[in-house]
Amino acid sequence: MGREIERKFLVTGSGWNHGATGKRMTQGYLSLDPDRTVRVRLAGDEAWLTIKGRAQGLVRQEFEYTIPAHEARELLALCTGAVIDKIRYRVGYAGHVWEVDVFHGDNDGLIVAEIEMDSEDVKVPLPEWVGDEVSDDPRYLNSHLVRMPFKEW
Amino acid sequence: MGREIERKFLVTGSGWNHGATGKRMTQGYLSLDPDRTVRVRLAGDEAWLTIKGRAQGLVRQEFEYTIPAHEARELLALCTGAVIDKIRYRVGYAGHVWEVDVFHGDNDGLIVAEIEMDSEDVKVPLPEWVGDEVSDDPRYLNSHLVRMPFKEW
Repeated sequence: MGREIERKFLVTGSGWNHGATGKRMTQGYLSLDPDRTVRVRLAGDEAWLTIKGRAQGLVRQEFEYTIPAHEARELLALCTGAVIDKIRYRVGYAGHVWEVDVFHGDNDGLIVAEIEMDSEDVKVPLPEWVGDEVSDDPRYLNSHLVRMPFKEW
Repeated sequence: MGREIERKFLVTGSGWNHGATGKRMTQGYLSLDPDRTVRVRLAGDEAWLTIKGRAQGLVRQEFEYTIPAHEARELLALCTGAVIDKIRYRVGYAGHVWEVDVFHGDNDGLIVAEIEMDSEDVKVPLPEWVGDEVSDDPRYLNSHLVRMPFKEW
């Protein structure tokens, strides 16, 4: 098992983007059950199947397996709800690497920044380009966005 | 993608068991949605994650990935519904290999035989120890047995 310990923030402004090149990701869900989400993610010629348990505080169980990209395309067609289309940028700040997701399609306009931590107690310095924390807001879960995309909020 | 083309029968009598040694399997489901079941199966020190689409006739899309056995144990604890416990025997008959599943626990008393085929048109000779065909009966799906075990029928 892995554990995912993550905080999530809305992004304000464009200060994070110093010419970083992003990676396009498409992802969908075979299970939207919050106790056991099953995600298919395709990024270029790489793909993964990821199972996550229910979040407890900032922590979720996470199991991730590499799968062939051509099978990920077929699995995306099996998914329930919409497929999410986003560009992920990796942005360094104060010794930490943030992941900034710029959503497209039905979630156009949504930009969130995530930081993974080794423990819940770590104090991460916040860049000036992050705004409100949304770690506890289920609307921002990607597994929620496939049913209720940002444009319908 | 793989395709699974399979027929399923009830087993009558013990004529199939000529001292064959079986392999114990425990399995559960991360998704019971018939359009996209996600199964975790553990057999000794081997384990798999298997996604199947909705059956169309005898055919289902199937994607299978090997996963570490110790992670399968943790994933089984994440599964919805009961975990199925069965012994699978491989039994040769007329040039075909049948899989005979002898269920235990809440499905004690249920024995089914399955045969995988390369195409729906293959005429498979039926052994004398198979009875009614249940290929089209969803009650016999393992993904159904975790919610409605045989002992409650």
